[in-house]
This record gives sequence, structure tokens and C-alpha cells, in this order.
Amino acid sequence: MKSKAIFYHAGCPVCIAAEQSLAKAIDPARYEVEVVHLGTDRARLDEAEAFGVKSVPALVMDGTAFHINFGAGIDALR
Amino acid sequence: MKSKAIFYHAGCPVCIAAEQSLAKAIDPARYEVEVVHLGTDRARLDEAEAFGVKSVPALVMDGTAFHINFGAGIDALR
Repeated sequence: MKSKAIFYHAGCPVCIAAEQSLAKAIDPARYEVEVVHLGTDRARLDEAEAFGVKSVPALVMDGTAFHINFGAGIDALR
Repeated sequence: MKSKAIFYHAGCPVCIAAEQSLAKAIDPARYEVEVVHLGTDRARLDEAEAFGVKSVPALVMDGTAFHINFGAGIDALR
């Protein structure tokens, strides 16, 4: 059973760099990585906030939000 | 040839959570992950700053620094 990791982003340059380097480095043998673009998929905003996501890019692993650098505040995406 | 990833931390709770979840999730088949405790290994502070590390925990991949959440500013470790 793989763990779930969700990478939330909004297409910003900081987000893309983090996706290319960090999200893609996660071990696919142990993790199922889902990439969610909150700028276009706004129906997922409430879910992201419920995980504690305050800014993007962010990676949620095992229910814990890890914010990576700072691309955009989540309020700017609403 | 594996890529190098360096996880800089300072033993703070935020650092430990990031190490347990994020640093350990990196694919060991593609990355060699080194963990550096800047609180005890201060000789590595200059190197970390040269990579652009401003706070810990941070992960440097392919020479790019990704800051994760916020544990401690690097100046507090000097």
C-alpha cells in the first residue's frame, strides 16, 4: 500500500521549480504523488486548506502540510 | 550516477518532521541524500549559505535550495 502525497501548486515559477525537483524526486515505489493546480482546480481549495496549506507550492504527506519556499498565498487563489 | 540532495536541519521539531516525511521520501535509487545538522556541524554553515539556504529545514537539490516550512533562521545558528 503506497502512501499518498499531494503536491499543490498554482503554476508560478517557484511552484514549477519545486515540482520539477522535489515532487519528482519522491520515491514512486512508496508514494503515489498527485499534482493539483489550485489556480485552475479551485474545487480543491477547501481540501488544501483543511490539510493546513497556507501557500503554494506545498506538499502534503501523510496529512501533514510542508510549505516549500513561497510562491503565492492561498488567499490569492480564491 | 545519482544526484545529490542535502537536507540541512538544526534538530528543531519542524526539522525532524520534515526529515521523517519529506527527506526520507526521496527516491534512493536516483538520489543520494545527505543529512547535515547545522546546529552541531557549524563548519557547513558557509556551504549552506552559498547554496542560498536562509532557514532550516531546507533541502538543496541540484544546487537549488528549497526551504520547508520554517524552523529557524540560519543566522540564529551562528
